[in-house]
Order: sequence, then C-alpha cells, then structure tokens
Amino acid sequence: MKEVVLGAVGAGRIGKLHADNILGMPGVRLKLIADPYIDEDWARRRGLKTTPDPEDLFSDPEIEAVLILSPSSLHADQIIAAAQASKHIFCEKPIALDPDRIRQALLAVDTAGVKLQVGFNRRFDPDFQRVKQAVDDGEIGPIHLIRITSRDPAPPPMDYLRTSGGIFLDMTIHDFDMVRYLSGSEVDEVYAAGAVLVDPAIGEAGDIDTAVTTMRLSNGALAVIDNSRQAAYGYDQRVEVFGSRGSITAGNLTATRTILTTAQGVVADKPLYFFLERYQESFRVEIEEFVRSIRDDHPSPVDGRDGLNSILIGLAAQASLERGEPVRVSEFAGADPG
Amino acid sequence: MKEVVLGAVGAGRIGKLHADNILGMPGVRLKLIADPYIDEDWARRRGLKTTPDPEDLFSDPEIEAVLILSPSSLHADQIIAAAQASKHIFCEKPIALDPDRIRQALLAVDTAGVKLQVGFNRRFDPDFQRVKQAVDDGEIGPIHLIRITSRDPAPPPMDYLRTSGGIFLDMTIHDFDMVRYLSGSEVDEVYAAGAVLVDPAIGEAGDIDTAVTTMRLSNGALAVIDNSRQAAYGYDQRVEVFGSRGSITAGNLTATRTILTTAQGVVADKPLYFFLERYQESFRVEIEEFVRSIRDDHPSPVDGRDGLNSILIGLAAQASLERGEPVRVSEFAGADPG
Amino acid sequence: MKEVVLGAVGAGRIGKLHADNILGMPGVRLKLIADPYIDEDWARRRGLKTTPDPEDLFSDPEIEAVLILSPSSLHADQIIAAAQASKHIFCEKPIALDPDRIRQALLAVDTAGVKLQVGFNRRFDPDFQRVKQAVDDGEIGPIHLIRITSRDPAPPPMDYLRTSGGIFLDMTIHDFDMVRYLSGSEVDEVYAAGAVLVDPAIGEAGDIDTAVTTMRLSNGALAVIDNSRQAAYGYDQRVEVFGSRGSITAGNLTATRTILTTAQGVVADKPLYFFLERYQESFRVEIEEFVRSIRDDHPSPVDGRDGLNSILIGLAAQASLERGEPVRVSEFAGADPG
Amino acid sequence: MKEVVLGAVGAGRIGKLHADNILGMPGVRLKLIADPYIDEDWARRRGLKTTPDPEDLFSDPEIEAVLILSPSSLHADQIIAAAQASKHIFCEKPIALDPDRIRQALLAVDTAGVKLQVGFNRRFDPDFQRVKQAVDDGEIGPIHLIRITSRDPAPPPMDYLRTSGGIFLDMTIHDFDMVRYLSGSEVDEVYAAGAVLVDPAIGEAGDIDTAVTTMRLSNGALAVIDNSRQAAYGYDQRVEVFGSRGSITAGNLTATRTILTTAQGVVADKPLYFFLERYQESFRVEIEEFVRSIRDDHPSPVDGRDGLNSILIGLAAQASLERGEPVRVSEFAGADPG
Repeated sequence: MKEVVLGAVGAGRIGKLHADNILGMPGVRLKLIADPYIDEDWARRRGLKTTPDPEDLFSDPEIEAVLILSPSSLHADQIIAAAQASKHIFCEKPIALDPDRIRQALLAVDTAGVKLQVGFNRRFDPDFQRVKQAVDDGEIGPIHLIRITSRDPAPPPMDYLRTSGGIFLDMTIHDFDMVRYLSGSEVDEVYAAGAVLVDPAIGEAGDIDTAVTTMRLSNGALAVIDNSRQAAYGYDQRVEVFGSRGSITAGNLTATRTILTTAQGVVADKPLYFFLERYQESFRVEIEEFVRSIRDDHPSPVDGRDGLNSILIGLAAQASLERGEPVRVSEFAGADPG
Repeated sequence: MKEVVLGAVGAGRIGKLHADNILGMPGVRLKLIADPYIDEDWARRRGLKTTPDPEDLFSDPEIEAVLILSPSSLHADQIIAAAQASKHIFCEKPIALDPDRIRQALLAVDTAGVKLQVGFNRRFDPDFQRVKQAVDDGEIGPIHLIRITSRDPAPPPMDYLRTSGGIFLDMTIHDFDMVRYLSGSEVDEVYAAGAVLVDPAIGEAGDIDTAVTTMRLSNGALAVIDNSRQAAYGYDQRVEVFGSRGSITAGNLTATRTILTTAQGVVADKPLYFFLERYQESFRVEIEEFVRSIRDDHPSPVDGRDGLNSILIGLAAQASLERGEPVRVSEFAGADPG
Repeated sequence: MKEVVLGAVGAGRIGKLHADNILGMPGVRLKLIADPYIDEDWARRRGLKTTPDPEDLFSDPEIEAVLILSPSSLHADQIIAAAQASKHIFCEKPIALDPDRIRQALLAVDTAGVKLQVGFNRRFDPDFQRVKQAVDDGEIGPIHLIRITSRDPAPPPMDYLRTSGGIFLDMTIHDFDMVRYLSGSEVDEVYAAGAVLVDPAIGEAGDIDTAVTTMRLSNGALAVIDNSRQAAYGYDQRVEVFGSRGSITAGNLTATRTILTTAQGVVADKPLYFFLERYQESFRVEIEEFVRSIRDDHPSPVDGRDGLNSILIGLAAQASLERGEPVRVSEFAGADPG
Repeated sequence: MKEVVLGAVGAGRIGKLHADNILGMPGVRLKLIADPYIDEDWARRRGLKTTPDPEDLFSDPEIEAVLILSPSSLHADQIIAAAQASKHIFCEKPIALDPDRIRQALLAVDTAGVKLQVGFNRRFDPDFQRVKQAVDDGEIGPIHLIRITSRDPAPPPMDYLRTSGGIFLDMTIHDFDMVRYLSGSEVDEVYAAGAVLVDPAIGEAGDIDTAVTTMRLSNGALAVIDNSRQAAYGYDQRVEVFGSRGSITAGNLTATRTILTTAQGVVADKPLYFFLERYQESFRVEIEEFVRSIRDDHPSPVDGRDGLNSILIGLAAQASLERGEPVRVSEFAGADPG
C-alpha cells in the first residue's frame, strides 16, 4: 500500500481532531502542520513537525495533498495556493461565503487538475450512509419527502456568530448538503421562516436562531429542515426520508443504550452532546475516503460543486427570509466556473 | 347522575362508531337516529329507533342534544335547524368549507344560546393530551416549534376527493387544529408547498397529495406539518413540540408492543391502520366530554371558533399553494359572526 | 345472535370489573349478582339485580352460566354447586389451593357436562396472543427458552398474604400458566430460588418476596420466571420466547407513547400501574370468549386441567424452595380426576 | 508521560486485535510479538518485530509487561514464566480450567509482586460501566436480582468445543464475572439447568448448548443467566440489574440507529454480530486500563481472584448440571493461594 503524505493548514480544534485521526491510519503520514499559533506542546507529544507558514507545505514536493483546516475566511486563498502547487485538497466547509470567490477557487482546482474534497463529514456517518443506501437500493421507493431536524446544544459565541454568515450558511449548510446527498437531486426553490426565540442578542446581531426551511427539489420531492441554535437536551440530529414504499429514519446517537427505570420514569440517555462526539466516526472516515480517492485516483466523494451548491441554497434561504417569499436557487447560480 | 338524551343525524361509518360508543356510556341515551339510508339491520341489533327525517329529532322535546354526523355539505343547515330547536350540538368537522356559511351557523348557535362542539376528536387522544399537559405545565418551556407528521395509508376515492375541498381542508385541517390546540395560539401566516407524487389522478383533479405547510403563530413560534395521502406502512401520526426547556413527542400507536427478532431484523408492529383504529379512544372521549359539558353546563371544549379558525388556516394554505407565497390567515377572517 | 344470560357470584373489585365489562357486551345479559356485602349503590346505578344468596342464581332456570368471582376459598364449593345446577362456569383463579379439592370440583364439572373456564385472563392479552401466534406460526422456530419477568408494584396487605398460599400459588401461578400457554407443553420439573428482600415481615409470615424459578418442560425447552413483590416503578410484565429461528418479546404497556426529552434525559412513561390497568383488555376478552364458547358450544379456552396443572407447578415450586432442590411436578399430580 | 513497553505472546485473532489497538495508543510501545505461527505479512505491514519464542520477551529488560494472548492451555505456564521474569501480566481468560493450576499461577504472581490483569473485557464496556455506576451510585437501591442474557450467534467448531471445558467455563464464565462485577458480591450457590436444543452433536460431545443458571449471592440477592450457543439473529448480550429503587438495563448494540418502516413492518438493526464487533471498545479500554495501572502503579482492575473465582462458579455450575441439584461454590474453593 503506497504511503500518502499529507500536510495540514490549521491546528485549531478541528485541525487537532483530524491530525489525531490521521495518526491512527495505516499508510498515511502527516508530514507537516502549518499554524502561526500552534499548540507546540500538543504537536510535540505527537511527534508532529510544525511551521508557522503554509507555504512550507505547498512547496514541499513530498507532500501530495493538503488539508485546509484554517479559519473559513482563508479557505479560498489557500485552495488556490494549494492547487497552484499541484496538491490535492481537503478543505473544511465552507470554501467561502461568496459564490464568486468559490468559483475562483474551483477554477484553480480545475485548472490544476487536482482533487478537491469539501468537509461535509456527515455524509460519512454510518447512520446516514445506511439511509442513503436504503434510498439507493429502492427500499423506500422514489423519495417524496426529506425531513431533517438539526439543533445545536447552545449558540456559538456572539463574536463568531457575527461573522458566521448567518444561520443558513453556518449551520443549515450541513443540512442542505444532506438533502442533496440523500436525494441525489438539486434544490430548486427555498422558503425560509425564521424567528428569534433562543436569545434576543442573536436577533440584535441580525441573525435568527430558529428556522423552518422548505425546499422543492428538482426531482419533484419536497424537503424540510428545522433548526434551532439551542436544544436544552443537547445536539439533535435526525433525518427521515419518506418514499412511495416507506420511510427510513436516523435518530440520535447516545453514549449507551442503557435504560434506567425508577419511580421517576423510564429514562434513556440524552443525545451525544455536540458534533465532535456525534460525528466522531464521520470525521475519521471522510479523511480515509480522501486518502483513498488519492491512492486509487477516484473522483472526490464530495467535490467543489457540492461545496458551491450548498452555499447557493443557503444564500437563497437567507434571501427568502429577508423577502418573506420563496426564492429560486438559480438566482444565485451565476455562470459555471468551468 | 342525570340522564342525557341524545339524537343522532347520520348513521354512516362515523355515525355507527359514535352510536356504538354511546351504547356503552352510563347516563346517556341515544333515543333516535335519523338517516334516510339507514342500515336497519345494524340498528335493530342494537335496539336503536330510527327515522329517515332529522326533523323528528329536532322536534322531540326529550332530546336535549343532537350529534350531526351527516355528510359535510349538510352540516351547516343542520346546525342551524338544531340550534333553532334549542338543541345542544355536536358536529363532525367541517362545519362548512365556506367561512361565511360557518359564520351563519355560529350565529344561529350563539342566538339560541346552545352549546356547539366540533368533532376535532384528536384533541381527546391520550397521547396528545399528555403533550398538551407538558406544554401547559411548562415541562418544555415556551414553545419554539411544533412539528406534525400526518400521513394517510391510502388516498380516499376520487369521487370523495373531488368534493373534499382539497387536502388542506379535508386532511390537514385536523393538523391545523392540533397546532392551535397544542400552542394555545392562533396561526398568523401560512406557506404551503405541495406536490403530486402519490397518484397523478389526484393532480388531474386539481389537488395535491404531498404537502409541507409552514406556519407562523401569533405567539412567535413556528410550526410545520408534513402530509401525504399515502404511506405504504399505514397511518402515520406524530407530533413534536419543542420548547426552550426540551421537547415532547407523540409517536404512532401499535396493536402490540411485541418485538420479533430474527435473521431478518428486529421488527416492531406497524402503526395502527387508520383513524378508526388510531383514534378509537378519542372518538369515545370527545362524546363523553360533550355529554359532560351539557350535564355540568361547562363551555364546549372545542367550540365554533375552533371550527371556523381551522378552516381559515386551510383556506390560507390553499391560497398559498396557488400563489406560491406565504399568505396571512387574517385575509380570510372577515367580520366576526357575533 | 342468541342472548346469553349470566349470573355472577361476588361483586368485589374483580366482580365489579367483570360486571362493567359485561354491560358493554352485545348479546349478553347479567341477570343477577349474588354478594352478601354488595355495594348497593354501585349496583343500582347500573340497574343490576342483586341477592345475598348464590343459590338464587343456581336455581334460576333462565341463567345459563355463572361467573364465580367470590373469595378463593369459596371457589370449589361454588363450582360444585353450579355444576350440579347444570350451569356453565367461569371461575377466577385459583379453583382451590389443594389439588384434591380441585379434582373434586373438576369431577363435578365433568359429571354435569358443563363448561368450565378458569380466569387466566393474561392468555387473552393482545400482546401475549401475538407472542403465542408467533410460536404457533413457526416464526421463531421450536422453542428453546421462555423468560418471564413478573413484578408487582407493591406487596398485598399482610392479612391477604398470610392466606394467599405463598408467592408461587398467589402470584407466579399466572406466569406458570403463561409458560404452559405459550409453550403448549407441560412443566416436568421446577427449581425455585427465593429471598426476602422487599420486606422482612413477608419472611416472618413464612413467605418470600423475590424468586427465580427455573422449569424443564416436557418438550425439552427451559423456562425461567423472575418475580418480585415490589418494583419501585410499577407493574413489570415482560415475556420473551426464544426459539431456533429467533425471539419474540412482549414489553410493558404504558398510558402513552410520548417521550419527554429535557436536560434530565429522554423519558418515557412508566408501565401501567397494576393488573387492572395492564390487563384491562384481557379481562374483557376472556368473558367474551367464555360467552362465545357457550353460544357456539366450543370447548372452554382455559379448562379445568389448566386450572389444576398451574397449581401443581406452584406446589412443586414451593416444595423446591423448602427442600433446596429441583422437584418434579408429577409428585403432586395424583390420580386423574376423570 | 512515561512510555510503557509491552511484549505480546500470541498473534491469533485476539492477539491481532489487541496489537492493532495498542498501535493507536499514545505512550505505549509494542516492542515484540512472540508466536511460532505468526502471520508475517500482517506483522510487516504494521512494522512489528516478531519472534517464535516467548522467552525472547521474558528476557528483554526493556519490556515491562507482557500480554498473554496464546491458546488457553498455555496461559498458566506463561504467567509463571512472565512473573518469574518480573513482568506485569495481562492474560486472556481463562488462566486455566483447573483451579489448582490457577492457584499456582497466582502464587507466582504474588511471589514476584507483579500485576496480573485477567481479560474480562466486558467490565470495560461503556454500557455495562453505566450499569455498574447506577448500582454504585445507589440509583436503583440495593440489588435484588441480576438477569443476564448471553447468546452466541453460532456454536464454535466441534474441535474447539471438545476442549473448551464446557459451556460454563467457556461461555458463561464471562457472565459469571459480570454478576460478580455488577453485584460487588461473591456467588455462594449455583443451580444450572441445561439442554441440547441447538445441535445434537454438542450433546454427543458431552456438552449442552442451552442453559439457565440461577445463583444465590453472598449479599442475599439472586442472579440468573440464560445462555444459548446459537441465536439466529446474532449475538445477544443483555443485562438487567433490579433493585429496591428500580432497574437498569443494558441492551444490544447495533451498527446504526436507523429504522426502516415499510409495509413489512418497523425494522431496526440486528445486534452487532459477535464479540469482536460488540466488545470492540472494551477490548481497547481494558488494555488502556492495564497500561494505566502500570504507569500509575494502581492495583489491577481485574485481578487473579477475579480470574479464579469465575472458574470456581463455572465448576459449581457444571457439577450442578451433572448432579441435578444446587451446588455451593465453596466446594471448589480449596485453600487460598497466598
């Protein structure tokens, strides 16, 4: 098995997570991590080489692929730099919030002929993969409706929230991608209803914290996502796909399957707290799949179009919220980057 | 305990159901059933007196209250006739599809000073009552979102469907009432997305068979209902209310709680087949509550306003579907009947 | 449909339950209830005729069948009296605690050629009937193991407990019958392990409150029952039948299927509190089946042998507990009553 | 963090599993694996040094601890050799089938003053740890009853079965340890009922394939284990602990939480297939805990007494089966090894 040599840009929370996952993968070597503010102690304990400058990765001929795990605002520039250095690229979502900027990055990727995988990790979650399999195998027949519930345990810090691009581009974007993934279809039209019910400060920052988003898909089906920035009981991540022959649901995961029965009731575990716990497995698998696509020269399982189109749906949702009417995604599609 | 003497108009499927329930209730007597096409054999076996003419009920001074269980198109006229005869009235939904006709009927009821209970039986279902209790007791905090899934096992006959008033007035109306009941709030605005995915004939008849309806409530919360005319696995009736402190869900009922585990999987019962099975208990309780409101002179637990407002939401949903934009319910509210 | 005219002996808690059920059954008339201490007000509100003397029932030629719902110590005598009066008989369990006394009663029944149904109501519970059906239809293959959990919410009063015959004859007897019903097999050998863990007073009265009883069945399968006189969370009634092709379980029933999810956990309903709630349906169905067996002249669905053999298993269990070794049921079988 | 250097004896299925787990653990190095029949390709791909001779491990001064993962018949000898070489020892269960042999091994361990951890991995399973926590925290009150269901998906090969020591020493031994672990109590007396229902060949080999084992614990509680060598639906591993305040259950784990609902029923996943899948996490954690006990010089979490006493219960169970009566564990206890 040929070793794949990686470099990583960014060693914050998500960067550390990916680095630790890669350390346990056979046939993969994480040669260098670039981060100007790196936690040196963390790196040393793992024997990881570090640099403050991402250029050191891009210029290293042994490094075949880079993971872009830096703050979102840097993604597009770093994709372009990595592509120009002929590196395959894994990039955390979003590529950018501005579709034109995304298109520039995708153009660079296409021009360089490198692979780009976008970090929609949830596609690699075993439960959602089982749902996808049921769809693909026809177990539930043609899709009529997709329902997603996606609620966070707590809102992000206000500082983060102000630059997040709003709930649709920051949070619902994962759910938009899930609709596209499970349906194998594009979203044509979006209607978003929103409210500020969790924290007035979120409203004062120009955002909402509670949303119901309805979509018409190009295959004729409907989809609906409900979001909340705060579920008192933790992270709530449920999916249902309903088709002509039946329905498949994916429920929340829990730390154990134990049931405590007392005079107070029959009590099961709460959902796993947040995305690091809930999607632990999918974060690992997405990198394995990235490495496999390089090693076997397969197409990227989550490509630039996936990164772009989810943003376009988010922009349409935001516009729908502001205008109070349904909005077609094509309004934001612009010219194709190719 | 004072005996309450009832008469019933209509002895079709739902009429027979109510009659059989009443036969098992202490302190209630069903004196006379009016139906021009009555199943005489059915009535004889129960010792029930019959007449083809509803007027025989209205003119019987011993009959204190009438159950209007006739075809929907006759409801408003029969309410008015019963009210003018000073009978208390239980009427299956809908009172009428035309709000002005409903207002006329409610005016007659108010003028006569009789009670009117509308047949939104689901309010009396033990599971939904538990959900309502959790809301009222503050167990889940102020409501942020109500989610209802309501799917039929099979579409009604095309003949019925053509005169049903459309999916929103025929089917979703129960769910609209449930949103109002659980939230204790009115619906301000509706956006309906629909599709024809079950049967093209439904589309040719000018109706849809799959719908997602989003609502903004006057208390600030959001609500969303998804409907299908056909779930391959039977009748799917689920409710979730999500609030600041948590969530309460009501799932489907089944004939048994048994679980069969074989090489093929871990298999639980399908949901109870349709509304007669699923809401069996609620059909009984709603009549008990009607009788109790008469005996104890309590206000009707589901009054004329409940009957009217659910229709108004349905009309707004239909208009939203046709216009492709959200519609305010107040557009259909008109003048108050009082 | 021919009317079946019944009389009942005993109008305590269980007698009232049966009477109320019968009042709602078409084609059945409860003509007379005999109880020296009858709750006259209860009877009057239902329009029921009463007498202090059971002989009035036995001598009434219109009464075709009697329900013996009196204290257990009277069952055998009343069965004999009813049989001699040529009445069909429904008798609450146990017929008697002494197998010779049971045999005398069964001899009287056989001599008179009347039907006798013993009140093992749980056989008519829809969940257990589904389990039985899975066994009979071969869904789980030949039986290897039956597991029953049967726990009461609270011990009976000490006065009752002292004359109850002990936990095996009073409580486990229902579970012994369930083993026989589900397996379609007799019990050959019993080993009972017991402990006093709930209340020392139970031990002082010579009984136990916690038991694990293992059985070898004549078809080669094993069975195990665990009992407790007190489950803090209510009535716990679970059954599993495990066979070569799989397993079927019946779990506890609850008032609703709602799930409350808060920061405290994911909480479902506790089991229905006790046998009156849990087995409500089965109490009704067993009488319907009794009436049907008379009307259609079918064999009794739970006959004298069922009543006798469950007692014999109970006696073997009690002997096993006392001797500290497994005991064969045949030791108590004696001569056949026929 | 001080590095702990390990050697392993045995690289069969379980040996490979442990080796792969150790490769992903920070602060631990697997220096050498001894196996005369080692899969060299497997070792090479992991960069593992191998030797045919376990003595090479025992004589390596850098190796601080050894994992004994060889065939069971070699365990005791290798424990003694490792102890004499002053290595800490992790040994797969059983130490030996003969208690005297176990006592010799434990004496060597005590004499050398090294740590010995026995491979009762299930103690480290997160679900069972939650059950244990509920017991220890008093959530269910003092224990009245422990119920364990433990069924394999298929019997082992007949060759293995003939030398396995019988179902109680081979299979139930894990469940005996679980009873001791969860109760924190010893087993005083055992009664085992067995049958040959899965495969007559198992009976011909002098073993049984279906068993119900009842235990009296020294704390007064009861316990019952049901075993089968073949569950058609896979590996069935359930535990319930019932106490004065309630009950806690651990159910089966599944690959996903998805539910497929079609006209055929409501279908959940089957249990994870066998112990490698089901107890994957616990195999990893037990080694982490072994390493931690060495690094921090803590007592072994599963010590020699745990390894011995579970065997004694198994021998008592086997004797009970043969004699057809309950057997006291003390009959097999002999003299203490110290």
